[in-house]
Amino acid sequence: MDNAGNRPDGAGVFITFEGGEGAGKTTHIRFLAKALEGLGYSVLMLREPGGTELGEALRALVLDPAYGPVSPRCEMLIYEAARAQLVDEVIKPALVAGKIVLCDRFTDSTEAYQGFGRGIDREQVRTANAFAADGLVPHATLLLRCEGAAEGLVRATHHGSADRLEQAGLDFHQRVELGFGQMCRESDGRIRVIDTSGPKSLTAAQVFSALVDVVPALADSALFDEDYFSVLDVKAHG
Amino acid sequence: MDNAGNRPDGAGVFITFEGGEGAGKTTHIRFLAKALEGLGYSVLMLREPGGTELGEALRALVLDPAYGPVSPRCEMLIYEAARAQLVDEVIKPALVAGKIVLCDRFTDSTEAYQGFGRGIDREQVRTANAFAADGLVPHATLLLRCEGAAEGLVRATHHGSADRLEQAGLDFHQRVELGFGQMCRESDGRIRVIDTSGPKSLTAAQVFSALVDVVPALADSALFDEDYFSVLDVKAHG
Repeated sequence: MDNAGNRPDGAGVFITFEGGEGAGKTTHIRFLAKALEGLGYSVLMLREPGGTELGEALRALVLDPAYGPVSPRCEMLIYEAARAQLVDEVIKPALVAGKIVLCDRFTDSTEAYQGFGRGIDREQVRTANAFAADGLVPHATLLLRCEGAAEGLVRATHHGSADRLEQAGLDFHQRVELGFGQMCRESDGRIRVIDTSGPKSLTAAQVFSALVDVVPALADSALFDEDYFSVLDVKAHG
Repeated sequence: MDNAGNRPDGAGVFITFEGGEGAGKTTHIRFLAKALEGLGYSVLMLREPGGTELGEALRALVLDPAYGPVSPRCEMLIYEAARAQLVDEVIKPALVAGKIVLCDRFTDSTEAYQGFGRGIDREQVRTANAFAADGLVPHATLLLRCEGAAEGLVRATHHGSADRLEQAGLDFHQRVELGFGQMCRESDGRIRVIDTSGPKSLTAAQVFSALVDVVPALADSALFDEDYFSVLDVKAHG
């Protein structure tokens, strides 16, 4: 394949996944990563907050309900701290090495959750985002949306005990969802909405299609016929 | 005493202490606190990073050399996160209650260490400082200066193992010291230099004098004669 290996210009591709809890980001990131590796790309999967030793420690702090009421500005700055470490220690070196970096949440989450959700001034959130990310902007961002915030919340809490974010209530999550929608409209095409209400195979096919402009090899129909995606549904019900 | 108790307008006083490691901030904060309590004030002593449960956990993270190279932006954002929590959870309520809040380090440390020391753009540091502190500015800031950064560093490391900041080298600490000097000149009188090269009693007397405009009771000569301050030197050599 002439698209095998990393991009010929040596510059990687940075793709982020956004959406509410339970939207299926983890599943679709893994599925996409496997496909990209099958195409010969070197892929790095990350999550925010986290992805570094220090970042995971910060993640544990910010998600721990034991600390009681956390100042919204403190919460946001912890996310930004973890992000700065991830960008410098992991993402930038990976992109320089020509890898495809898939990240579960990035700056858009902070704008949606801390800006629209917690009510921190959006311009202040954007300033902090740009500082923490050192100006790095994803090549493409996929916003996975289920029918409503409520349903996503229910899916997430069925899989374990609710953490502090999940306890923050339905109103909060509805503001976040509306915020994501507005950010999408204002993003000049960077943020692409993926409807997750159908079977997983259909969602995965949408994910691949939505990324053809940043990874052209994903348009290779010989590799991705219907059978390829249907594996997801078999696994889900098997 | 007609100055007993908290300020009659119900508004507290926020005083911060700055300076290099080993400058004697802890000693002089404690001595000042005791004197203010003797005058009938309610005093709160704090330190940065820390002062809250979450802040102390962040302090432990950022000072732990085990995490290896920490991104300068990450380091700064961890300090800002701890600050936001301290301001919202502790400092603001204390000031509303009319207390005198004495804080070991605040926003000026971030500007000196992360701005001048680590080379982060000073305007970006100031923007982050204002966000984390929610616009709160100390009524007065005392900059304790010993003869040189090197001497302070030596004093600090003699009292235990050097943490990550103390390992950062003499060049770094000299940039910090020059930064503090510049910030002082630009502060319109908020930052007051205290020369710590003499005996502790002399330093303490300077601290009290420098704060008379924000706590007028500190000018009460009946309370603070020479004997009062000389206790410090006796303790130091006893």
